[in-house]
Parts: sequence; structure tokens; C-alpha cells
Amino acid sequence: MKRSLFLSAALFAAAALQAQTSDSTFIRRLSDEILTNGTAYENLRQLTKGIGPRLSGSPGMVKSEQWGATALKAAGADRVWMQECLVPHWVRGGKDLLRAEHFVSPGGKNRKGSVRNLNVLALGNTKGSGSALRAPVLVVSDFADLDRQKDSVKGRIVFFNYKFNPRFVHTFEAYRDASVYRSQGPVRAARYGATAVVVRSMSHSTDNHPHTGGTAWGDTVKTVPSMALGLRDADWLAAAASNGTVWATFKTGGRFLPDTIGHNVIGELRGTEFPDSIITIGGHLDSWDPAEGAHDDGAGIVHTIEVLRAFKALGYQPRHTIRFVLFANEENGLRGGRKYAEEAVAKGEKHLLALESDAGGFTPRGFGFSGTDAQWEKFRSWQPLVAPYGASDWKRGGGGADIGPLNTALKTPVVGFIPDSQRYFDVHHAANDVFELVNKRELELGAVNMAALIYLVDKYGL
Amino acid sequence: MKRSLFLSAALFAAAALQAQTSDSTFIRRLSDEILTNGTAYENLRQLTKGIGPRLSGSPGMVKSEQWGATALKAAGADRVWMQECLVPHWVRGGKDLLRAEHFVSPGGKNRKGSVRNLNVLALGNTKGSGSALRAPVLVVSDFADLDRQKDSVKGRIVFFNYKFNPRFVHTFEAYRDASVYRSQGPVRAARYGATAVVVRSMSHSTDNHPHTGGTAWGDTVKTVPSMALGLRDADWLAAAASNGTVWATFKTGGRFLPDTIGHNVIGELRGTEFPDSIITIGGHLDSWDPAEGAHDDGAGIVHTIEVLRAFKALGYQPRHTIRFVLFANEENGLRGGRKYAEEAVAKGEKHLLALESDAGGFTPRGFGFSGTDAQWEKFRSWQPLVAPYGASDWKRGGGGADIGPLNTALKTPVVGFIPDSQRYFDVHHAANDVFELVNKRELELGAVNMAALIYLVDKYGL
Repeated sequence: MKRSLFLSAALFAAAALQAQTSDSTFIRRLSDEILTNGTAYENLRQLTKGIGPRLSGSPGMVKSEQWGATALKAAGADRVWMQECLVPHWVRGGKDLLRAEHFVSPGGKNRKGSVRNLNVLALGNTKGSGSALRAPVLVVSDFADLDRQKDSVKGRIVFFNYKFNPRFVHTFEAYRDASVYRSQGPVRAARYGATAVVVRSMSHSTDNHPHTGGTAWGDTVKTVPSMALGLRDADWLAAAASNGTVWATFKTGGRFLPDTIGHNVIGELRGTEFPDSIITIGGHLDSWDPAEGAHDDGAGIVHTIEVLRAFKALGYQPRHTIRFVLFANEENGLRGGRKYAEEAVAKGEKHLLALESDAGGFTPRGFGFSGTDAQWEKFRSWQPLVAPYGASDWKRGGGGADIGPLNTALKTPVVGFIPDSQRYFDVHHAANDVFELVNKRELELGAVNMAALIYLVDKYGL
Repeated sequence: MKRSLFLSAALFAAAALQAQTSDSTFIRRLSDEILTNGTAYENLRQLTKGIGPRLSGSPGMVKSEQWGATALKAAGADRVWMQECLVPHWVRGGKDLLRAEHFVSPGGKNRKGSVRNLNVLALGNTKGSGSALRAPVLVVSDFADLDRQKDSVKGRIVFFNYKFNPRFVHTFEAYRDASVYRSQGPVRAARYGATAVVVRSMSHSTDNHPHTGGTAWGDTVKTVPSMALGLRDADWLAAAASNGTVWATFKTGGRFLPDTIGHNVIGELRGTEFPDSIITIGGHLDSWDPAEGAHDDGAGIVHTIEVLRAFKALGYQPRHTIRFVLFANEENGLRGGRKYAEEAVAKGEKHLLALESDAGGFTPRGFGFSGTDAQWEKFRSWQPLVAPYGASDWKRGGGGADIGPLNTALKTPVVGFIPDSQRYFDVHHAANDVFELVNKRELELGAVNMAALIYLVDKYGL
């Protein structure tokens, strides 16, 4: 009895060791395939240089959907389809303008101010100013400062000069901290009668690119026209206002056209053992209008396609069904992610796990996991197999905007790919989010780590 | 008795916890100081944009030594001095040339070849070709291929087309694998009577910059003139040679002038408790001549100065003496590192640990340690205190070229700072190793992690 137990234990240990060896060998092959024959970089070139900006409703959106379907087929999907959803259709409506006039009043006399055109981008979803408006600028450092100065807000252009805090080592924490001024600043200033709002860009870049992004909107939202300001100009504006008075001419033509039709573009590898159990991997196809959307989120798109290509190149036949999803409308509506979850619920689909890449094409650092304790224990046991490829930091919490609705609706565990975050907010939602600032190796390694993770989930379940 | 033992244990645990808390608090303050008030980026701008290339013997070397002494004083060193050493003085001697003529011979007839000027840089330390030489090109894939084709080598320009292997996740492994063709290729080809050597650049960049670097030389070394070729041109040359014949005109004016005087620039904070026990932190001041040397090794220089500045800004008084060393002549002689070790031996100095940053100003990944088992056990116990700042991967093995002689001479444990390696060989020893390709945050975080480590070594010894 004892001896057979011992033998069983030994056999089990041997089997476990063999499984581990075979897993590490297969992950090594995935890595070699992607680092040697990878197409993620060339795909990204096509998406960014060939198509460019692709905000929901734009011609770029339509082109990128067609390109995505073709790319998923070329990578070897068993089938590819378009999942239709209505998407908002916001347009910038021409070049945004913020022209500042700086009046210094030595000896009490107002003299002609010096004039400066500042580097701005209207916030996404903002309503337009109609014709240009002109008003004095009120600088506030944060919401508490706004409340303190509430009696001075009426008729002014409020400038939220809230700094992106450099003390946060992980830049997404600084973003969480600061981005409320972009989403809620215009609403909060509107309550006190502001004419318009300017926000300091959410970035610690060393350049002057303005960084746009969605602001709160809707029929019931009382807000004012708003725009983001480049960092150097933000510093100039704050200094000018503290040394005299600044008036500004403010103009944006932002407006909504009627909702239009967009699509999640979905490729599938059908599972050999559990075809009804679905693993999702994805990123989002849309980008803000002034940018090529190379890191946000061209990288997630080509990561997703590359994982599919590598599986097919190695002849891997998944046990579960794997869906490679290029989500629609993450930036200003999340309609794609919602549609995907709605349909999953309506069809009674079973979803094992969803993984999203939407933090850029930078060197891999880890994965963030949202799921139960038991799922986490199993999930994190795979860390030693993936860590040698860069994503060594596995932590709880995380996922992705597009897969959030699936998590909410079906309690599907969700995972966010975490690349290094230091350069992300240099380019996020700005005109310099371009192909040239993506490194080929860093991009490819993202696909390596994601492929390894999907392979392990497929093999061992969760 | 039992109770007092329990109390002692509890007190010990409480003290340990308090120490840990106070350590993490101080490291947090170092991080805040560097990320908020850091001068590393501005220092790097001065060193790269203000001075530029600074190969041993060049005017840039002299300027950078003076700049370094001033910067160390400004950062708050108790004293700063120049440690003199003789350095080699190699000069490129004008623009390097490799002009290829490609002959295709359809039907056996030799027709006029198409001519192409290739993007090259002579290897550092190479001897010149005198006037231009012209010879047929022989492509070899590696040393084994050279040996197989040895009877065809005489009178030819041998082109080592050895590929930088993309399968290595850590690019320094690809470099170790490939760089032997730069150091030894000309010597090996000379044995078979080659006229000159061209090596494929050690890089997996997507551009065509040639990457230079030192090749073996000396009075007793039989070698031939040599240069490095950009990757796109390397692919072109290999394709052309396999489809016809290539002749090339090869010219470089590389030569040595007499050795000249260089200096290690050293700043010191004197220890309050153990002034005779020395901790060294450093990088190297020299760079190859076609580059600003921003990542290699401007980053290591400004990391070093920034650690000093942050300590002083926080009023930190070290227990041990800390030396901040800007080493001379790493690239083509290592005379600075050797001099530093020689003098340490001659003066009977006691060295506790040496840390070098010479792998670029990229986002921190870890530290590599060379020392005894006991030292390693103590060293690695600090990992949890530093990991939150990015350098989470602590491994055995590593150090730095400039601190290697100290390790050899005195068995001083040595540590290499390990930033992410994916982009390093895109710029290494090439004209695009410029300030613009260094990210401010990534650079600063390097200094944060190094400062934390030096603080812990100083506090706990080794």
C-alpha cells in the first residue's frame, strides 16, 4: 500500500515535471516563432501608416475594420465575422483654437497684451463653442481650489492646472489621479457658470503636445466646451495669469453626428475538446482622431492578431475556443465591449477568461488579474513559466475596458497585460502616438507573453 | 527566562519591522526627490548636446572631464579629484568608405556592375587601409563557414554576415553571441590572407545605422582593416553577392596617435562611521566618436551624479565613504577601471562594494551581483525594498567593465544595474545614440533604484 502510494506520488511528480517541461518547451517555441517570424510590427505599420486615425464613425474606422478582418483571416482564423453595434459619432469640426492675450498692469495701467496661440486639442465628446468666445482665464489648481474661487468662475474660462504627479512610480496611478479633471472638470466648472474649460494635459512628457481624451457628456449632463493644453503652454499660461491677467479666444467645433454603425471584428479558433468554452483575447481598434493610435491601441490589435498567427504557425489546436477580438469604440463609448458582453449573455455563452492589451506596445512587465481567490491561485501558479519572457509581475486587480462588461455580466475572470508604463503618457491620446515610437522587439515580446498566457489557460482551464 | 526570551524576540522583531519601515520611508523619499527635482535629464542634455562625442584622447574627453568635475561639485561632493591615467588615442581619420559594385553575369558575360555606397563605420582601434583598396567580397556566415571557405579568402574583403540572434529574450546574450565577430573576425580572416573585413552590425534595429565598437589590436596582433555595416546594407550585400559578384572599394583612415592623458573623475562623500571603507558607484565618461553616447554611457554618468545629489538634498550622511566615479576609457582600453583598482591596491584601500550603470538609461529591471554566497544572501534580502521602484529581478552574475578590475584585485563584490535591454542595441555604438532617445522618467528611475541600493549597502554593510 505504502509502496504503491509512493509510486503514485513519484509518477505524479514525474508527470508534473514532464508537463512543466513540455509547457516551457512550447512557450519557447512560441517565443522563437514570434521573435523570428513575427508580423506584429508590419501589421502595426499598415494600421498606423496605411490607415491612421480611426475614431468611431470616421472613414478610418471603416477601413480598419476591413483591414482587421483581412488580417485575422491571413493569420489563420477558422472564421471571421463582424459583430455590429451602434457607435457614437463625434467630430472635431476643424482646428481647435486657444489664443491667449497677456496683460501686465504696471502702475495700474492696462496695456496691450502679448498674444500667443497655445497648443490645444478639444476634449473628445466636447460640445463646440459655436463661434469663437473670448473671456478672462481663471487658473485653478484642483477641485478644492475651484470651490474656493467659485464666486470668480462666472463668465470665465477655467484652466485646471492639475499636475500629473511624478511621484507615482506606475504612471497609470498618476493618470487615475489626474484624469478626473478631464472627465469632470468641465461639468464642475459649468455648475459655477464657467464659459469654457481648459485642462492641463495628463502627461509628464517633455514636449508640448496636447493630450485629448473623453470628457463627460450626454443629454442630461450640464457642461461647457473644453480642451486640453500642452504642458509647456500650460506652464506659460499659469505663469502669465499669476503675473497679470490673461484673456483668451476659445474656439472648437466639436459636435455629435447621429450614431453610426461600427463593428467588433472577431476571429475564432474553434476548440477541439471544449468548443463551447470561450477564451477571449483582444484590444481596441478605434483611436482618437489626431493620432495614429500606435500604442493606443494599435499595439493591442497587433498583439491579438500575432497570438493567433503564432498558434497557427506552430499547428497548435486549442482545447477551448479562442476568440481574437478587435473591439469597437473603446475611446468614447465602450459600445463594442458592451455589445460583446450582451451577445454573450443573450446566447448563453460560457466564457473561461478574457485578456486585453490596452496599455501600449512597451516591454512586458506583468499581468493584472481580476477573479476569485481560487482562480487567482491557479492562475498565478503559471507565473514561473511566463516570467522569463518579461512579464514577471503578476498581481491582483486589472483587466481592460473592453472586457469589463464581460466580467460584470458573466463574472468572467479578466486579465490586463501590463507593459512598462513610463513612456505611455508621453504619447497617450496625442498626435505623437505614432508607429515610429513603437519598438519592434518590445512589441513582439508583448505578443510572446500573451501567447504564453493564453496557451496555459487553454491547456489547464481556470 | 522564557518570558525575557520572548520579550527579546518580540523586541527584536519590532526593531526589525521599524528598521524596514524606516528604510522603505527613506527610499520613498529618495524616489520622490529624484522624480520631482531630478537633474539627471538636464545633466544628460549638457553632456550629450553640449559636449557630444568624447572618445579617449578627443577634445570631447577633456571637456567632459571638466564638466564632470563641476557637476560632482554642484551635486555636493565633499571633494572632487582627477585620477590621472594614460589612455589610448585612436582616431577615425576621416569618413569611412565602402563602395560596392555588383556584377551579374547572365550568359557568362561580365557587364558593368551597379554601384552603391554602403553605410559603414570603421571598427574602433582598426588600422587604416592607407589609400582605398579594391577587392572582391567574400560573404561568410560564421567562423565555421570562414574555415570551410579558407582557400577563397586570400586577397578578398571578408564580410562576416553573422546575424544578431532574435531568439535571445535578453539582448545582451545576443550581443555576447555575436560580438566575437567584431573583436576576432578581422584577426581570424587575416590568418587566411584576407585584405580587409566587414562585419554585420551587432543590432536588431530596423534602420541602417552601422554600429562600431572595439576590435582586437596591438603590436603582436596580426589583423586587417575592418568596418561595421548597417543592417539593411548588410542584407543587400549578402543578396547581391549570392546573385553575382561584388567588388568593393574599401577605405578607412583609422590609426593610433601616442597615448595621452585622461582621468577618472571622482567625487566623494566621506563616511561618518567607517571612512576607510569605500562604496563605489560609477559609469564611464567616454563614448565612441560618432555618437553622443547618451545611453552608452551618458546615462550611467548622470545616474551616478544624481545619486549623490539626492543623498545631499535629503541631508543623508553615509556611514561609509561613497565614491562617485566617472571612469575614463571604457570603450577602447579600460585604462580608467584598471587605474582605479591599481591605486586601491597600492593604497591598501578597503572596498565594500562597487556598482556600475553601463547598460543604458532604460526602465529599471534588476541588479546582477558577483560576490560570495554569504554576501549574496545578505544582498538579496534587500530586494523587497527596491523592487517597487522597478528593479525587481535580482540575479547572480554581473558587474561592469570598469569595476571588474576592482573585483579581480580585491575580491570586491560588484553589481551591475540592469535596465530593460530591448532598445539598447538599436543605438549602441551608433550615431543614433542621442539624447532624444532617452526617456526622462526611465532615466530618473534608474537613479532611484541605484540610490536605494547604495543606501542599503551603506546602512547594513555586506
